Amino acid sequence: MHHLGSAFGPDITFLGVPRLNLDDPPADADVIILGAPFDGGTSHRPGARFGPAAIRQACYLPHNGARRSLALGVDPLTELKVYDAGDVPCYSGDIEQSIRTVEGAVRMTAGLGAIPVVLGGDHTIALPDMRAVARHHGFGRISMLHFDAHADTGEVEDGPLYGHGKPMRQLIESGAVRGDRFLQMGLRGYWPGPETLRWMADQGMRSYEMSEITARGFDTCLTEAFATAMDDCDGVYLSVDVDVVDPGQAPGTGTPEPGGLTSRQLLDAVRRAAYELPVVGVEVVEVAPPYDHADITAYLGNRIVLEALSGIARRRRDAREGTTWDPAVPLLRRDGLGGGR
Amino acid sequence: MHHLGSAFGPDITFLGVPRLNLDDPPADADVIILGAPFDGGTSHRPGARFGPAAIRQACYLPHNGARRSLALGVDPLTELKVYDAGDVPCYSGDIEQSIRTVEGAVRMTAGLGAIPVVLGGDHTIALPDMRAVARHHGFGRISMLHFDAHADTGEVEDGPLYGHGKPMRQLIESGAVRGDRFLQMGLRGYWPGPETLRWMADQGMRSYEMSEITARGFDTCLTEAFATAMDDCDGVYLSVDVDVVDPGQAPGTGTPEPGGLTSRQLLDAVRRAAYELPVVGVEVVEVAPPYDHADITAYLGNRIVLEALSGIARRRRDAREGTTWDPAVPLLRRDGLGGGR
Amino acid sequence: MHHLGSAFGPDITFLGVPRLNLDDPPADADVIILGAPFDGGTSHRPGARFGPAAIRQACYLPHNGARRSLALGVDPLTELKVYDAGDVPCYSGDIEQSIRTVEGAVRMTAGLGAIPVVLGGDHTIALPDMRAVARHHGFGRISMLHFDAHADTGEVEDGPLYGHGKPMRQLIESGAVRGDRFLQMGLRGYWPGPETLRWMADQGMRSYEMSEITARGFDTCLTEAFATAMDDCDGVYLSVDVDVVDPGQAPGTGTPEPGGLTSRQLLDAVRRAAYELPVVGVEVVEVAPPYDHADITAYLGNRIVLEALSGIARRRRDAREGTTWDPAVPLLRRDGLGGGR
Amino acid sequence: MHHLGSAFGPDITFLGVPRLNLDDPPADADVIILGAPFDGGTSHRPGARFGPAAIRQACYLPHNGARRSLALGVDPLTELKVYDAGDVPCYSGDIEQSIRTVEGAVRMTAGLGAIPVVLGGDHTIALPDMRAVARHHGFGRISMLHFDAHADTGEVEDGPLYGHGKPMRQLIESGAVRGDRFLQMGLRGYWPGPETLRWMADQGMRSYEMSEITARGFDTCLTEAFATAMDDCDGVYLSVDVDVVDPGQAPGTGTPEPGGLTSRQLLDAVRRAAYELPVVGVEVVEVAPPYDHADITAYLGNRIVLEALSGIARRRRDAREGTTWDPAVPLLRRDGLGGGR
Amino acid sequence: MHHLGSAFGPDITFLGVPRLNLDDPPADADVIILGAPFDGGTSHRPGARFGPAAIRQACYLPHNGARRSLALGVDPLTELKVYDAGDVPCYSGDIEQSIRTVEGAVRMTAGLGAIPVVLGGDHTIALPDMRAVARHHGFGRISMLHFDAHADTGEVEDGPLYGHGKPMRQLIESGAVRGDRFLQMGLRGYWPGPETLRWMADQGMRSYEMSEITARGFDTCLTEAFATAMDDCDGVYLSVDVDVVDPGQAPGTGTPEPGGLTSRQLLDAVRRAAYELPVVGVEVVEVAPPYDHADITAYLGNRIVLEALSGIARRRRDAREGTTWDPAVPLLRRDGLGGGR
Amino acid sequence: MHHLGSAFGPDITFLGVPRLNLDDPPADADVIILGAPFDGGTSHRPGARFGPAAIRQACYLPHNGARRSLALGVDPLTELKVYDAGDVPCYSGDIEQSIRTVEGAVRMTAGLGAIPVVLGGDHTIALPDMRAVARHHGFGRISMLHFDAHADTGEVEDGPLYGHGKPMRQLIESGAVRGDRFLQMGLRGYWPGPETLRWMADQGMRSYEMSEITARGFDTCLTEAFATAMDDCDGVYLSVDVDVVDPGQAPGTGTPEPGGLTSRQLLDAVRRAAYELPVVGVEVVEVAPPYDHADITAYLGNRIVLEALSGIARRRRDAREGTTWDPAVPLLRRDGLGGGR
Repeated sequence: MHHLGSAFGPDITFLGVPRLNLDDPPADADVIILGAPFDGGTSHRPGARFGPAAIRQACYLPHNGARRSLALGVDPLTELKVYDAGDVPCYSGDIEQSIRTVEGAVRMTAGLGAIPVVLGGDHTIALPDMRAVARHHGFGRISMLHFDAHADTGEVEDGPLYGHGKPMRQLIESGAVRGDRFLQMGLRGYWPGPETLRWMADQGMRSYEMSEITARGFDTCLTEAFATAMDDCDGVYLSVDVDVVDPGQAPGTGTPEPGGLTSRQLLDAVRRAAYELPVVGVEVVEVAPPYDHADITAYLGNRIVLEALSGIARRRRDAREGTTWDPAVPLLRRDGLGGGR
Repeated sequence: MHHLGSAFGPDITFLGVPRLNLDDPPADADVIILGAPFDGGTSHRPGARFGPAAIRQACYLPHNGARRSLALGVDPLTELKVYDAGDVPCYSGDIEQSIRTVEGAVRMTAGLGAIPVVLGGDHTIALPDMRAVARHHGFGRISMLHFDAHADTGEVEDGPLYGHGKPMRQLIESGAVRGDRFLQMGLRGYWPGPETLRWMADQGMRSYEMSEITARGFDTCLTEAFATAMDDCDGVYLSVDVDVVDPGQAPGTGTPEPGGLTSRQLLDAVRRAAYELPVVGVEVVEVAPPYDHADITAYLGNRIVLEALSGIARRRRDAREGTTWDPAVPLLRRDGLGGGR
Repeated sequence: MHHLGSAFGPDITFLGVPRLNLDDPPADADVIILGAPFDGGTSHRPGARFGPAAIRQACYLPHNGARRSLALGVDPLTELKVYDAGDVPCYSGDIEQSIRTVEGAVRMTAGLGAIPVVLGGDHTIALPDMRAVARHHGFGRISMLHFDAHADTGEVEDGPLYGHGKPMRQLIESGAVRGDRFLQMGLRGYWPGPETLRWMADQGMRSYEMSEITARGFDTCLTEAFATAMDDCDGVYLSVDVDVVDPGQAPGTGTPEPGGLTSRQLLDAVRRAAYELPVVGVEVVEVAPPYDHADITAYLGNRIVLEALSGIARRRRDAREGTTWDPAVPLLRRDGLGGGR
Repeated sequence: MHHLGSAFGPDITFLGVPRLNLDDPPADADVIILGAPFDGGTSHRPGARFGPAAIRQACYLPHNGARRSLALGVDPLTELKVYDAGDVPCYSGDIEQSIRTVEGAVRMTAGLGAIPVVLGGDHTIALPDMRAVARHHGFGRISMLHFDAHADTGEVEDGPLYGHGKPMRQLIESGAVRGDRFLQMGLRGYWPGPETLRWMADQGMRSYEMSEITARGFDTCLTEAFATAMDDCDGVYLSVDVDVVDPGQAPGTGTPEPGGLTSRQLLDAVRRAAYELPVVGVEVVEVAPPYDHADITAYLGNRIVLEALSGIARRRRDAREGTTWDPAVPLLRRDGLGGGR
Repeated sequence: MHHLGSAFGPDITFLGVPRLNLDDPPADADVIILGAPFDGGTSHRPGARFGPAAIRQACYLPHNGARRSLALGVDPLTELKVYDAGDVPCYSGDIEQSIRTVEGAVRMTAGLGAIPVVLGGDHTIALPDMRAVARHHGFGRISMLHFDAHADTGEVEDGPLYGHGKPMRQLIESGAVRGDRFLQMGLRGYWPGPETLRWMADQGMRSYEMSEITARGFDTCLTEAFATAMDDCDGVYLSVDVDVVDPGQAPGTGTPEPGGLTSRQLLDAVRRAAYELPVVGVEVVEVAPPYDHADITAYLGNRIVLEALSGIARRRRDAREGTTWDPAVPLLRRDGLGGGR
Repeated sequence: MHHLGSAFGPDITFLGVPRLNLDDPPADADVIILGAPFDGGTSHRPGARFGPAAIRQACYLPHNGARRSLALGVDPLTELKVYDAGDVPCYSGDIEQSIRTVEGAVRMTAGLGAIPVVLGGDHTIALPDMRAVARHHGFGRISMLHFDAHADTGEVEDGPLYGHGKPMRQLIESGAVRGDRFLQMGLRGYWPGPETLRWMADQGMRSYEMSEITARGFDTCLTEAFATAMDDCDGVYLSVDVDVVDPGQAPGTGTPEPGGLTSRQLLDAVRRAAYELPVVGVEVVEVAPPYDHADITAYLGNRIVLEALSGIARRRRDAREGTTWDPAVPLLRRDGLGGGR
């Protein structure tokens, strides 16, 4: 397997980071970005196949492989060794094969000691993404932090074997993730039904529905969930379905559900997770450009990736330097900038 | 009058609920959905005539006449007897006749003991909708809970006799609703002028403008309004103009006014109202598909209807079973699902 | 120089206010609106040249030169003497000349004793706008209240001499504004880098990044900033880049950065600033219609202008009449409307 | 009745031509433009109420009241006395009143000896437009040249009394136009049915359906139609429904019918008609901006008006000067430009 | 297998024709419409899964199961017995199964003696569609008339086994269609390469590329192709890929290729084919609504179906009644309407 | 000067052809593609700065640096040595500097013996593009074949010194091109005025306005123009403004003028020119993505480039091999493919 290239359009990398050839990888990768341009598993609006290309380039700044987070004071693309391996060969008409190729590529990535960051594609790919990570770190040793409007725990008996409505069930049933280390944030709407919910309850899943989030406060819920995630687990996998955000701020997605988080809430939550938890894998899915407007959903997808990477980079720097990050400190007094007031 | 069919496009029902023939109605209807595909009364952008069709079908789930609310744990479409009577014959070029036909249809619906849920159409139809409900329940016996960016209390002397800027005045003047049981939520912008406001004050109306909502808190305002609504009244009519939500989340509307509620706030408020108050009629108006993007406003309209119906269904179930609903309870521990943590 | 007319499309004025001929101006102008239809300084998406025309007309109400603020109970367009001088001749291909013509026109406007309200155009025009105001009121005597996702303090050495990424640096370096009276609200994202931030810190700038705003509360930050702004300064210049708002509510802009303020937050902040502070100039920039949808960003730009003018008008009235404005008072009891409850 | 102003948005005139007050009109008007911002008669997509504003301003050249036709070598806006009287007060919810006000205004216009050019609005207005012209010139003395995908001869018995599907029948039944001087160009699709067609045949109408136009050639059909139009009639009324053009080039319309003329064909035909025939009235209808993209339909509407006016102006000049216009002559050798080759 | 329903959105039929249950079909069906909502085989832009729903309803006329062709004077939906069997269950992530289910359903349809009209979906479905028809009528006995920008004869060895780029090769290789009775119209662009073209030549295919069509005339090419099609064959299968039309008139498609036919040309060609040839099956594919604007591509798809059905209906009527259809006859003199001139 | 990279978004090349470093160029380049991402000279809608990126990637086929023309049977990207040098550094706010940098880069390209293919950008760049080519080949030795809706011969005295409305005048005045070897195709609309036309006539320009093209036939006009172009000149420069095509097929442009060529006509004309004439330079300008829909204008721009290159490649092959290309020959019998019939 050579450098994978881009499935659609020109061969580009995430904001210009260096290319990586999975057959001849560098030894120093901290993060490897992979595209999974697959939308054969979506139950409604397709288009997420163009998600990787859109997420990689949705930025008005030069595509120079560098991005310094204003808030966190780190440049994750240069402080970490970040590579882009291109798009895993997926064929939306063949879901089983696509799952295999994605799982293989993520497995290789994790095997290199790097954090895989997978750009979807529809949420079907959570199954191969997370399972590959679990194979590397040990089944049941990684908890799942899952931002989504939908539980994605559909029953496998219904309809096709695989799809974007059921990966979470398959991950738990396979043992890759413990049900009681499966944290869901942002659920809402009119799905799934009681049998599925009962199954979820039986697994010990913890699903924060929007009415709970509103009633108790998002930060409170996150703090609680983070504690669960770190209880007897070695790392956290971060799965972000862009439809967790309200359709007004993320119209470009397949199954929009009104009443979601704001993009500000999601970006803060992703930052907190990446900064406070030992993240071992990330996926950003369900960005569907055909339904986007003015690229706002693609921009959001790009920023979700950058927030995650920035949190990771800052966490590593703080661990190294014994520093800490406090958002209540004025920007120009952070990190020794010397702003007086 | 046979089954009314759809005014535009194929003959469909709200998410696949059964059809109802107003001439030969079933005896058991709890809720009857009616379309009022009229936009001749809009003062600016037309298109709300396509609102009923858009609201009926804006959902990525199967159109199977069933929807279980994840938050509330009820399926309003099957726990209630919900029918769709089709679109009332409206002609946007003839506002007076359209008002008559809508009023007649809503009156028949209410006469069947069902809750009418009217899908607009522009807000002109509040006049026939609410007046018909009041005729059934008694003039002055039903309070109005009105979510809107605009007061819609324009003076009848100005311009045409009817239109989407004046139904609320006509409802009060006719005696259908008491002015001091008229609750408005979400007003903002640059209309109406002082004479109209003075008239509103004289009627004892209670209009929660966005600056008050921000200063005092939306929940506080709602609680206060709900108390007023239930003071010496027998029921509440819920009128939701989708433009109460910010244009970013509801672009598909005729007279967008920046600075509105979030869709999350509106959905929560509609749910609370339907759960806490004895709702006797609902209308969802001003969804104008030509100005929508990726159907996000249509989806919001669909979810407003479902939240209202879900609240009603849960209220009935709780009354029946002596249970109660608490959003602070984790999803998987609600309703005996048994989620342990 | 005669009445300037409109650079693009028909010759219109802001919501129908009277025209003003800068060569033969009336003596009584309180506010003069100017268009700066320039987008040659934008680093990414152009289109802000059409901002003035879009902002002037984005309203569903009659364009009659009158707008009564529902919240504030004033009509700024009639209680103040508001004129529209048309568009300053700009040529997007010639940034230096455009800066000169804008500065000249704003200077004339300020010289008439009126508050200039400049409709951009890209943010490049902050340099001539604010510098002209400072020339009139005295260099260093006016503080800057700057709402933006971006600091706009780019180094002049990089790339072209002028552009929308650097006016704030040039304003401080020229002495027009004191660095320690330069207040920035809403910064976020991945720009600028540490050298620029260090320069900003060295100037004593106060930049409220979104993570601080979230951590400490927006109102708290505003209160603090307002105090700084009024410390040993004679007035405040209000510069509003529409991209401070989240792209979901302001998609029509050149460099969208996810995670911004809501439009409700911005409108409230602009109102507060205009009501609580002695505003001597306003600009609303970076509305780029080609990327807008359903005119929602143009509407927002229009409402930003109206909120600023309404705040100014109410401030003057309250000063005159010894009254005060309290958002917690119900709408129909404000201003002697007499709403009983 | 004062100057009518614009119904929606700012008060503008067609490309900046002078305003005209119908109550105090100038004596010299050759052409008077009127907007009829009405779409209450449309059977499907509304939005044509914004047609007049869109058609008036869809041009990238300065709005200076001058336009020299490159092809014809005349500037119709300055060689003719062209005024814009603004928008006739229409209310889409009241079709009968709207018809009356439009008819009154067109009648006044014609009474001034000017050619009325009415900007629709939906095609309902053909009834008052043409009837008013006929009242001035004599019932049955003006033939109709009607470009449209639809015959618009629907039976009055069906549905509402007036609407955009039936004005042509009403014009013939009223005697305003002779059926055998009613020429239709571009019909196609799946409407109307045989009874209506039989009625049309009985009136002696001549309807050129697209299959005939393709089989015989458009120019041949036009030549034949022009001869009929001028047989025992004193003038021609030109009614152009923009949907005669293929939806690919005119998407912004209410009832698009694939397989239409190209915009090139229509513009050439309008030019030929206006140059070869004594046009006494023009209407351009069914431009519906909400469905337009990049203003291409609005631009087409603007150019249809300009082609008609240019043809009229050139016809008058040629009559005056004894010259003639020949499209086969190279541009730079036309009109004494002196291009040598 | 019961009535198949709609895969996405409400359960509708083509313009309101009666439903058909493939398990209990009526004996009298002349035409059976089937949806194949599959887009897993598209190589680029997906979205054709929504093609069937879009094509079924893209019409501004009442959805009453009747449509009289203005040109042909027949109502194919009532003169023929036309039913809609709903959507074949397809899953875009499983191309092999989808091909099987589509082939099964088309086979049943053909077995009933009806003409199947399949609404795609991407062009992958040509394989099961046409193969099923050939199984019924005999392999090699039906010629193929294929309108498309692309030859769709890709080599099976490359990439996935099935997809929208290769069905035509598979149809020939399977023997379902004779290569020398395979007529292609409208090819252009930059695909396929010489090996594939050589293979095509070897099969005796006849591919009319746009430069030949322009050079020789479309009608000439059609006449020639029709003769080939009827040489020792029993019927013709009509496969219409909407991308044969220029992207300006058919933007809503997956692989747009500039320089195509006009929609007028295509509609005329489809009409001619259906009127002059014994059509035994029809498919209309590659309408991809996410990329459409103002539904113009969906309307075109709808009209392609109607033109085909109208041609068939008129052909049958003329055969029955000994009449003939001549487009050069004026509309109102066709079919005994009696238009005098 | 190193490899220039891309001004906006990721660094890509035209359909994946190899990069070229203008400082260290290969000796074998036949064609060098350059982007000129400049839109500071546009008089109306900006956005052409994104034209180079859009044109480079608007294709659904793999971006593999190869494209075989189906019609011409050549792969210009591999039979010619085609490189992409990236984007010339342009700054839309500084038109003079941008003209200098573009002219320098094109000059270098021509100096390498390669044909420059410049991707605009607005039409301002015709001045540096063509002047640089003329400097290489000799002033007055290269004729201009200019496809455009506009003459672009505006007077320099009016307004800014440079812009997209006047490059053609400057080219003639500078002597770079002889006025009587300046051929314009597709002019129409309402610009320029008689003085400019007289100047054009005086220069001996030959401008084919659309009414002449319609009257005499496009092929006839082309043949005549080609003869003029080759009369005492050594080569032809091909300047294609995408707005020569009708806005329905090219909406994504700055100054759309209804009534243009079809994309089929333009592609055929470009092919003919490149095949029949010794083309020494090409530019494709005024593709403005913000106004595009479904990328159709970008696709057209991409195909214009490919048609030009294919024509050049075929011309060279035919010269080399003594073959000839005849569009009337069936596709599968061209180039020895062996199609029998």
